[in-house]
Amino acid sequence: MTLMKTLTPAALLIALPSLGWAQDTAVDPNEVALHTKYILTSLLFLMGGFLVFWMAAGFAMLEAGLVRSKNVTMQLTKNMALFSLAAVMYWLVGFNLMYPGDGWTVTGFIGAFSPTVLEAVGLEATETDLSYASVGSDFFFQLMFCATTASIVSGTMAERVKLWPFLLFVVVLTGFIYPIEASWQWGGGWLSELGFSDFAGSTLVHAAGGFAALAGAMVLGPRIGKYKKDGRVVPIPGSNLALATLGTFILWLGWFGFNGASQLAMGTIGDVADISRIFANTNMAAAAGAIAALVLTQVMFGKADLTMVLNGALAGLVSITAEPLAPSLFQALLIGAVGGVIVVFAVPFLDRIKIDDVVGAIPVHLIAGLWGTLVVVWSNSDASLSAQLIGFFSIGLFVFVVSYLFFTIIKATIGLRVSEEEEINGLDMAELGMEAYPEFSKG
Amino acid sequence: MTLMKTLTPAALLIALPSLGWAQDTAVDPNEVALHTKYILTSLLFLMGGFLVFWMAAGFAMLEAGLVRSKNVTMQLTKNMALFSLAAVMYWLVGFNLMYPGDGWTVTGFIGAFSPTVLEAVGLEATETDLSYASVGSDFFFQLMFCATTASIVSGTMAERVKLWPFLLFVVVLTGFIYPIEASWQWGGGWLSELGFSDFAGSTLVHAAGGFAALAGAMVLGPRIGKYKKDGRVVPIPGSNLALATLGTFILWLGWFGFNGASQLAMGTIGDVADISRIFANTNMAAAAGAIAALVLTQVMFGKADLTMVLNGALAGLVSITAEPLAPSLFQALLIGAVGGVIVVFAVPFLDRIKIDDVVGAIPVHLIAGLWGTLVVVWSNSDASLSAQLIGFFSIGLFVFVVSYLFFTIIKATIGLRVSEEEEINGLDMAELGMEAYPEFSKG
Amino acid sequence: MTLMKTLTPAALLIALPSLGWAQDTAVDPNEVALHTKYILTSLLFLMGGFLVFWMAAGFAMLEAGLVRSKNVTMQLTKNMALFSLAAVMYWLVGFNLMYPGDGWTVTGFIGAFSPTVLEAVGLEATETDLSYASVGSDFFFQLMFCATTASIVSGTMAERVKLWPFLLFVVVLTGFIYPIEASWQWGGGWLSELGFSDFAGSTLVHAAGGFAALAGAMVLGPRIGKYKKDGRVVPIPGSNLALATLGTFILWLGWFGFNGASQLAMGTIGDVADISRIFANTNMAAAAGAIAALVLTQVMFGKADLTMVLNGALAGLVSITAEPLAPSLFQALLIGAVGGVIVVFAVPFLDRIKIDDVVGAIPVHLIAGLWGTLVVVWSNSDASLSAQLIGFFSIGLFVFVVSYLFFTIIKATIGLRVSEEEEINGLDMAELGMEAYPEFSKG
Repeated sequence: MTLMKTLTPAALLIALPSLGWAQDTAVDPNEVALHTKYILTSLLFLMGGFLVFWMAAGFAMLEAGLVRSKNVTMQLTKNMALFSLAAVMYWLVGFNLMYPGDGWTVTGFIGAFSPTVLEAVGLEATETDLSYASVGSDFFFQLMFCATTASIVSGTMAERVKLWPFLLFVVVLTGFIYPIEASWQWGGGWLSELGFSDFAGSTLVHAAGGFAALAGAMVLGPRIGKYKKDGRVVPIPGSNLALATLGTFILWLGWFGFNGASQLAMGTIGDVADISRIFANTNMAAAAGAIAALVLTQVMFGKADLTMVLNGALAGLVSITAEPLAPSLFQALLIGAVGGVIVVFAVPFLDRIKIDDVVGAIPVHLIAGLWGTLVVVWSNSDASLSAQLIGFFSIGLFVFVVSYLFFTIIKATIGLRVSEEEEINGLDMAELGMEAYPEFSKG
Repeated sequence: MTLMKTLTPAALLIALPSLGWAQDTAVDPNEVALHTKYILTSLLFLMGGFLVFWMAAGFAMLEAGLVRSKNVTMQLTKNMALFSLAAVMYWLVGFNLMYPGDGWTVTGFIGAFSPTVLEAVGLEATETDLSYASVGSDFFFQLMFCATTASIVSGTMAERVKLWPFLLFVVVLTGFIYPIEASWQWGGGWLSELGFSDFAGSTLVHAAGGFAALAGAMVLGPRIGKYKKDGRVVPIPGSNLALATLGTFILWLGWFGFNGASQLAMGTIGDVADISRIFANTNMAAAAGAIAALVLTQVMFGKADLTMVLNGALAGLVSITAEPLAPSLFQALLIGAVGGVIVVFAVPFLDRIKIDDVVGAIPVHLIAGLWGTLVVVWSNSDASLSAQLIGFFSIGLFVFVVSYLFFTIIKATIGLRVSEEEEINGLDMAELGMEAYPEFSKG
Repeated sequence: MTLMKTLTPAALLIALPSLGWAQDTAVDPNEVALHTKYILTSLLFLMGGFLVFWMAAGFAMLEAGLVRSKNVTMQLTKNMALFSLAAVMYWLVGFNLMYPGDGWTVTGFIGAFSPTVLEAVGLEATETDLSYASVGSDFFFQLMFCATTASIVSGTMAERVKLWPFLLFVVVLTGFIYPIEASWQWGGGWLSELGFSDFAGSTLVHAAGGFAALAGAMVLGPRIGKYKKDGRVVPIPGSNLALATLGTFILWLGWFGFNGASQLAMGTIGDVADISRIFANTNMAAAAGAIAALVLTQVMFGKADLTMVLNGALAGLVSITAEPLAPSLFQALLIGAVGGVIVVFAVPFLDRIKIDDVVGAIPVHLIAGLWGTLVVVWSNSDASLSAQLIGFFSIGLFVFVVSYLFFTIIKATIGLRVSEEEEINGLDMAELGMEAYPEFSKG
């Protein structure tokens, strides 16, 4: 609040940054147009960024609602910590590793290693490229995508992974794994050269997070008591479905920023109309995913299943994320609905192969992410199925192998999983000495 | 993310939509002005839209907090499902039924029957009317109003209505009832010809939802044990007032989008100043409604009543919604305060006539909606009391009669209400087989 | 929704406010530029305003999560009521008392006493200063800061203060104390003349709220059972850490509006780049505060402490608030991290001197506020340590003395604290007759 209301207009003129439009001389319409575009696209990133930030709260609430009450404090701690670590790592190395410009370490594969530097205050003495947006807004927006990738992993590995080994993985994932694979496409690397198409990150963010989660679940093993020797799968209900639903609504809201601001421009009427298409399609796919899961669980199991509905909405969102712009509303409906169907079949399938995914993140982010990545070819004629397959599986392989190796090494050294006794008593008391709901008797 | 950071400005120029401003030739200031207005109004709809989307979460939390814990999963499921169904129905038929342009089926009464089609990507080859906003943003924004109408109904009918019959009603309400009555005013139908005035929907959205809720409550009957034979009303406290309060804060926040973006334009200094007035007035009315309910419950009952305060704030919001622009801040204060007073008297009145409204939606949305609709004449000299009365009661009659008929037919055929045993055990276990808080002992 | 979709462009032209850009004649590029700036800065205030409004919900959830379940309804009621009272008081006297322009009652110390009046609808017949933003948007934004100050106090004094005496203090704080001290700087008063620097309110909002909270805690005394005679401090865990975490995420989100919109301008490329810097720095400081508290509690106590992590993030936010623009990202990291360290040491320190601060608001807002105010000199060469010290302590002294006097008078007259029996039974049943979680057995 450096400018005060009491300043007169004359005083304000002096305070204006030198690059601003003077108000007492004739302005150049070209400059007005150029500056307005720059401001509007930067604003898009700031709005998109705060909406995607909000998704961190969504994951925290979703996961806290789907674990048992004895592990809620731990899940909250992990989500707060992983976002914070992502924010630091993405500054320290991630942003320039992902967007190296001309400064690749290994062109097309590994970017530049340096911390992020923003423009000078007021753009003074900065040679600014006005064709895009402020570096600060771009960094802020892109950072949120990095953090989202980590959020996906924490849900799958809940209720048994130790705090610090998990956070160590977050450091590696947000500082290196995500920025490197994302650079292959959004940094202008080899996948973008190949013609891979992933508008807002069905593969780069969601499936990548899902592959890391899969590696984690495989190395960790299932929770005690989840799979009986006779083959039965024991359902372990979440402790607070109101929180889980709140989390889903938050994620749905945040996704408008996730997909909408991935248009990366709001300075022309075409861009804002495209962002509008994206908002409408994103909403439609989420709705269709929720309805598909609702109807399907009613038909298949005789009872509608709220957790499936929530994951159906999320799967619809992941499905539309690779191409939220090109589809018609009807295509978006079908794309999202298939996402919802995938969840209903994939959740029991994972249980059958004894991969214990506490919140269903692998069906939602990895499997629906595959669907979303492939279905791009339906509405976007520039995409090819081969490029989509190569993109998905090369990123998947990279993320899975590195994550699997990392978790295996951790398991063999400092240990990845809490003791059996600690798991049974709950991670909250064992690792943190603090309960989330200390006053409510457990039934 | 089709444009990559690594592209040079020269490459960006090629990627610009053809309707964008070229940067290497002189731009036409008229075009700059026109395009900027189009972008800003579209942005207003996108922001307003995501804020009103957020109200869906607000209703879900408010209602989940005000029902007993045995019915929380059901209430969450209904809210997630109703929003999703509204999203599909408004696309399939609602939007064009509400805004037929020149394509009325029965002019002034019933619009056009066709699904929504958005502009082409990048506005390429589209003959676009640049005087308003993108169709996508308009559709996205208007859809949220349709969903809000349905959210209002679910609270009143909670704790006893079956899932699927309720959702069937949502299909009819969001696909037909709401779009038709809303077309009478916002679609340019007979009520707008008559001079009815309802800026953001005290009648069209809130009272309409309230009339549907009233019909539902009357056909359903009260919950078991709510009204004793000796005339006593048994209070049934909500299970989670923290959730209910969160829901109210969410609704309050979303209402800035609801009322603010109903200005339908942000491209001139007059429009943005008006939106600012609307934000300030909306906030003032909510605050005054809360304070009125706080003071009145203290004075009348000797104890401040949080649920009345929450509903008082919401009633203040509904009251200002018919005319949030014209009132001064002091008028907004009085309009909102009367809304809060209405709630404190209307809630026990409904109980006296044995209409069991679980969350108080009828006092908040219907009765305060009537007040808000009539008080328009105080600050807006273009409004007449007769037009306001005709508008309110014609919409009320239409919505009430159609809803009442629908619920009666459902009741006589597939059944509207769960069995006595299921109601006592809770809808969560009976209809969904899933508890919201499975670990917390019930007192 | 006065403009309908069915209107033709020709009809729209007529409906345009007279100050808008005509579309059929040549526009003046200077006017386009000037109007666009006015719109964008007003939009900044509206967006910033709704984000800071959202902080009221954040405080409500944080505090409801950190008190015992027997006091949750009371904490929710206080938060809903204090925001509403702030909204009314800031209109009635606060805004013009804080921003008197040329109408000071005692120049530099006490502003003007008059209610807020907004511009006319559509700016018709208003002589509008187009160099800044609409009065409505400015009022809306500034009001939220006033309410934030009051939110800070309610957490510290929780679980023992009576409802109405507390609300009476809110009236005085939001109507007089805050507007007067804030006018000294942001209203162009004596502190701004002196060269004090407080960009978004580490001192003016946060420390001021903290000083009022400190006065309140001292006059009230600690909760029964908190401090044993043998010197032991009894930890009283919060009842719902999921709510507390949600509240922290909400506050973090709202802070982007709090700091970002305090740039007070978005009409130039320099301004939007600055806002971007502020968003990035604000996020970094919060993340660093959370990580510092996480690591420090692990090292010092052997267990990570979620409530410290939450307060660490908030302390990081408070620390960067006095100067979120000038620091580099690395400076923001260090500034925020020190904030997190402060919390870990200050919370037990306050207990040692027997000041019972239920939610840790004094460490977070007052002590980190001091740090944030002083560290401005590190990155902002216009600031001097002496001016920062004078600013912090003069405002602190004023707020503390007036608050202390007020609480002492209340205590001696109508009483400030509930009876011992009421405190033990909980304020919810004693003062409100309503439980927040009536169905959950208390362990």
